[in-house]
Amino acid sequence: MGTMIKAGIVGATGYGGAELVRLLLGHPQAEITALSSVSFEGMRLSEVYPSYTGLCDMVCGTQQEVVEQCDVVFAALPHGLSQDLAQECHDHGKVFIDLGADFRLESEEAYKEWYNGDFKNQSLHDQAVYAIPELFRDRIKGKKVIANPGCYPTAVALALAPALEKGLIERTGIIADCKSGVTGTGRNPSATTHYANLNESFYAYKIAAHRHTPEMEQTLTHMAGDQPVKLTFVPHLLPINRGILATCYARLQDGVTEQQVREAYEKRYGDEFFIRLLPKGKSADVKQVRCSNFCDVSLHTDQRAGILIAISAIDNMVKGAAGQAIQNMNLAFGLEETAGLVLVPPAF
Amino acid sequence: MGTMIKAGIVGATGYGGAELVRLLLGHPQAEITALSSVSFEGMRLSEVYPSYTGLCDMVCGTQQEVVEQCDVVFAALPHGLSQDLAQECHDHGKVFIDLGADFRLESEEAYKEWYNGDFKNQSLHDQAVYAIPELFRDRIKGKKVIANPGCYPTAVALALAPALEKGLIERTGIIADCKSGVTGTGRNPSATTHYANLNESFYAYKIAAHRHTPEMEQTLTHMAGDQPVKLTFVPHLLPINRGILATCYARLQDGVTEQQVREAYEKRYGDEFFIRLLPKGKSADVKQVRCSNFCDVSLHTDQRAGILIAISAIDNMVKGAAGQAIQNMNLAFGLEETAGLVLVPPAF
Amino acid sequence: MGTMIKAGIVGATGYGGAELVRLLLGHPQAEITALSSVSFEGMRLSEVYPSYTGLCDMVCGTQQEVVEQCDVVFAALPHGLSQDLAQECHDHGKVFIDLGADFRLESEEAYKEWYNGDFKNQSLHDQAVYAIPELFRDRIKGKKVIANPGCYPTAVALALAPALEKGLIERTGIIADCKSGVTGTGRNPSATTHYANLNESFYAYKIAAHRHTPEMEQTLTHMAGDQPVKLTFVPHLLPINRGILATCYARLQDGVTEQQVREAYEKRYGDEFFIRLLPKGKSADVKQVRCSNFCDVSLHTDQRAGILIAISAIDNMVKGAAGQAIQNMNLAFGLEETAGLVLVPPAF
Amino acid sequence: MGTMIKAGIVGATGYGGAELVRLLLGHPQAEITALSSVSFEGMRLSEVYPSYTGLCDMVCGTQQEVVEQCDVVFAALPHGLSQDLAQECHDHGKVFIDLGADFRLESEEAYKEWYNGDFKNQSLHDQAVYAIPELFRDRIKGKKVIANPGCYPTAVALALAPALEKGLIERTGIIADCKSGVTGTGRNPSATTHYANLNESFYAYKIAAHRHTPEMEQTLTHMAGDQPVKLTFVPHLLPINRGILATCYARLQDGVTEQQVREAYEKRYGDEFFIRLLPKGKSADVKQVRCSNFCDVSLHTDQRAGILIAISAIDNMVKGAAGQAIQNMNLAFGLEETAGLVLVPPAF
Repeated sequence: MGTMIKAGIVGATGYGGAELVRLLLGHPQAEITALSSVSFEGMRLSEVYPSYTGLCDMVCGTQQEVVEQCDVVFAALPHGLSQDLAQECHDHGKVFIDLGADFRLESEEAYKEWYNGDFKNQSLHDQAVYAIPELFRDRIKGKKVIANPGCYPTAVALALAPALEKGLIERTGIIADCKSGVTGTGRNPSATTHYANLNESFYAYKIAAHRHTPEMEQTLTHMAGDQPVKLTFVPHLLPINRGILATCYARLQDGVTEQQVREAYEKRYGDEFFIRLLPKGKSADVKQVRCSNFCDVSLHTDQRAGILIAISAIDNMVKGAAGQAIQNMNLAFGLEETAGLVLVPPAF
Repeated sequence: MGTMIKAGIVGATGYGGAELVRLLLGHPQAEITALSSVSFEGMRLSEVYPSYTGLCDMVCGTQQEVVEQCDVVFAALPHGLSQDLAQECHDHGKVFIDLGADFRLESEEAYKEWYNGDFKNQSLHDQAVYAIPELFRDRIKGKKVIANPGCYPTAVALALAPALEKGLIERTGIIADCKSGVTGTGRNPSATTHYANLNESFYAYKIAAHRHTPEMEQTLTHMAGDQPVKLTFVPHLLPINRGILATCYARLQDGVTEQQVREAYEKRYGDEFFIRLLPKGKSADVKQVRCSNFCDVSLHTDQRAGILIAISAIDNMVKGAAGQAIQNMNLAFGLEETAGLVLVPPAF
Repeated sequence: MGTMIKAGIVGATGYGGAELVRLLLGHPQAEITALSSVSFEGMRLSEVYPSYTGLCDMVCGTQQEVVEQCDVVFAALPHGLSQDLAQECHDHGKVFIDLGADFRLESEEAYKEWYNGDFKNQSLHDQAVYAIPELFRDRIKGKKVIANPGCYPTAVALALAPALEKGLIERTGIIADCKSGVTGTGRNPSATTHYANLNESFYAYKIAAHRHTPEMEQTLTHMAGDQPVKLTFVPHLLPINRGILATCYARLQDGVTEQQVREAYEKRYGDEFFIRLLPKGKSADVKQVRCSNFCDVSLHTDQRAGILIAISAIDNMVKGAAGQAIQNMNLAFGLEETAGLVLVPPAF
Repeated sequence: MGTMIKAGIVGATGYGGAELVRLLLGHPQAEITALSSVSFEGMRLSEVYPSYTGLCDMVCGTQQEVVEQCDVVFAALPHGLSQDLAQECHDHGKVFIDLGADFRLESEEAYKEWYNGDFKNQSLHDQAVYAIPELFRDRIKGKKVIANPGCYPTAVALALAPALEKGLIERTGIIADCKSGVTGTGRNPSATTHYANLNESFYAYKIAAHRHTPEMEQTLTHMAGDQPVKLTFVPHLLPINRGILATCYARLQDGVTEQQVREAYEKRYGDEFFIRLLPKGKSADVKQVRCSNFCDVSLHTDQRAGILIAISAIDNMVKGAAGQAIQNMNLAFGLEETAGLVLVPPAF
């Protein structure tokens, strides 16, 4: 089977890190070599996540240990902490895959505006690639600084990309009404995640003010042949653990039919293992992609109003985070893209 | 305290009927006099809903008994079955409040198109009033055939009415992205409502094809001074029992500011007990209106795109059904409009 | 309607306090006069619990203000903080109802062992009454220091009292396998109450080590004519908001039949409004008592093993806390015992 | 890797069958060759379970096709339908693994009493083996008629076996208070599984009357060296999809300490991959075994009452059904026992 890739995770005890562990444990060509955690240094991962007992009882060490012992370093860190680590990996010749936002935006100005931070080393940003494999596959291969996309931006980009590429919808007035399970907020308890509060609740948050907005617009603009795309993004919090549903609305260009749209998507996504275009009449459901790397897409139109309704469903922790990161690792190392990622979503 | 209004429910064992029972049990000026049910005739209501044991152990009788014994007849029937009952109530001089759709649409053509039915007696339809009290209060007083609005249309109408009345938003391109708890589908078990299916799921259904669409457009058109309003309505199913959140998107007219919108809503809804306009920065949440007759409304704008985002939250079984029906009863009988409806939403 | 009782809550922003507010808002003979909160002093209660907006926008003040302005002071405080407040109420002639544990145990030794605290003023403890109205009604009337029972002890005592009173079961080897919704843990977020952790989970905690154990044994011992009762108590955490189910197992005395047991319960509880003894073949369900002050009890036997299985269901926040506290207030002030407590559990 | 085992499932569209599909898709030495379903014959499995789209789009055929085309036939049928199929498999020399109850009870009398059925062919029953691998491994190897145990009996047997084997607890008066997620009731919608009913509910059912009782006693009796064990079994329904928690109570023999019990369990289960004995102070949680074949066991004692509390947690659909069935297939075919079953329970 050849040599195993040595994989390490910095920030292993956050939700992104924990999900990477779950997936890497089943990867046939990679093995977890080192984990680090600031909060739980010195503890076994299985003490933090007892479900992993007997499967990953590795002790959390330091960030430095991870960089030294691994071929690929996954960073699952709060925003702003990845740039230095990326530099360190770069200097040691390691592949760096960032689950945070530091390398996602191409424009330092936008980064400043939305994240209140600076690009510490522009050349590192120049080497970085924004990595949704289904949209930017060729650019990812062989790269060593990989910006793993945000969860919402992945869902929205995959819902709308073919329609924008083919010029089937207008580039303004797009609405992305998104709903996410609670794991998107991470492992830290808060009033938001307090069970008695969230249970039987549903509401929108960061309305038209979420940091994922510029990331969505950047990708969709590229899809539209670099003509500017503007969208209104409203996220909502679902009382479920996993899953994002993105219900996207866009005005169809004059004369465009649902059938034309469907054909464009079929052509674009026909060979993509992880994108399942649902047949006419079916509607994407977060349940059907749970714990898997699939992105289900369903297409609908409001003929009366001339609106395309494109809906995508992903597991925010897999295709929206750890799964896509491993898909990118596979690409970066020249492995089969699906290696370790043929995950069956449980039927119930 | 004066005479109690004799209230009866036809279709008492469906969810709408059962919720009417819950609310009427606490009404100071009405008493439940008769209940009917086709499926459970001869059984105590508390055998069907054990939570009511000791509070409503009344036996379900026939529709005829209800009409004979009551001053007001609430109908919680499948669509299409209300017209004959309305006629019967009319002939006996009883007030008829229909929780179904038979009298909601003013246009027989639209009724035919969306419900595949006819108006059996046009004069009865002429006497009927579409009854969202906050929008049509004056028309409801003294009426005897009352069309209680649908759950989604109530939420959407209250979210958008003031903006349309004042001409602050465009009348086309409106999006109503709505999410409902599962009680909206009623008491009959199905694959949709099967716990193992719905739990941890989330998806859209009847996309741009739901029967509540013409009802929404009818109300909003009236609000816009009878200029036609078109909207795209997409409902989603939430894995919770109660609640509708309507996230509505509309293009602001040129130059209109969020502040202007807020002032219009404050003026319009300032005296409405059941509408709670949330302060800037807060977002409506179905949890906060649970089991109550409140409609919470929050206002937001996407300045970058010139979009108003108006969000409303109701309990689909209360303000979206039984509560609003009792509010209408109060109006029809000249009672205090809030009688029996000062319901405290549990904090958890 | 006569003068309204002036009610105040110390610790109004905890879950017990918030539930007292919900119930007192609907009480016909009491009004909330003052609230206090250490954490949220100076804030409106409806800022802490937005569901109360428009219904209780009172500002939280100090404990002293509550004592001064009210006839009855409810304390919803962490254990150990009630004794001084009780003294203060006593000195001002106010009725004091403690939702905490400070006055529940008659034995200072037991209090020391399980709560690691002392009785500060024995005479105050002597005046206190442990107040499950259905078991100790006569003792409660006219009392001014009222120890409102714990949630689990209420459920277990009501499940087993008649069988012990009549000597139908053995006094040792009793098992109380209890399951509680998460509101029992209060409003403070923690890993335990983190949605992603609790959702789809189920486990036991404080196994045979919960502080409610001596309280249960104290009550059951009294029920058994002051012959010592020993039980094994294991609580579990349910992924629901409200409700306790107590599944209690006890060996039937030789020759005792299920019918004899049922008759004893019918006789004992026949006139109790808040206890609903379910008919043979039905099983108590937390859903059926939700948001109400009811305690549903169902009786079963394992003939093969000679075991009585008595199951009770309560809402931990109502009959297990705030509801029972108001029931005790009603008794203390000579009101109708059910005043403000005829709460209909929603059918869904 | 050698030849793949050809696996077939009769009753593939029930929950047990669907879970077998999920697990077999990841098995390195078995492949699904045929599926049958009476209800969905002619449909793709992925039409019934859309989560499997792209992974198992096989069309459901007939039972006969399954028997003809496979080396091993898994039966996931309603009770009573397996005996004829077992005969057919036997006649064709196929390995038969029954997820139903037809071959679980050794005593025809007990089968008659609890299932109201007969043993059609006693010799087939004589060849059958009741297959909890951790307890009866040696008997299973090479067998061709395998009775896969019930979900509750698996959990209870693994919780108590070591204590009974070593004579550490009394054989009477045992209580098994069990709680199961809703998938145990299968795929057919009913009032029980209706979301609005089950959500926020919790209750016991088939109290001391569940068919799994004789199966538990049979296994525990064998564990006790064939001295009769009697237990009281009360199942409860949890508002979660997956998982069984068995809280088992037994009287410790005089003088037996918790430490002795723990040592017996460590010795008995130390080498068992699928049994995770939790360290002192930890409590088994269904969440930690979700979607995996693990059985977590935690041990506790009530010193005051001399009671052992042994708690086990399994996923009812995996270790309680499909996972254990594959574990038994592995044993029957001489594969590594863990093949295809090293499943990582998601951390959230």
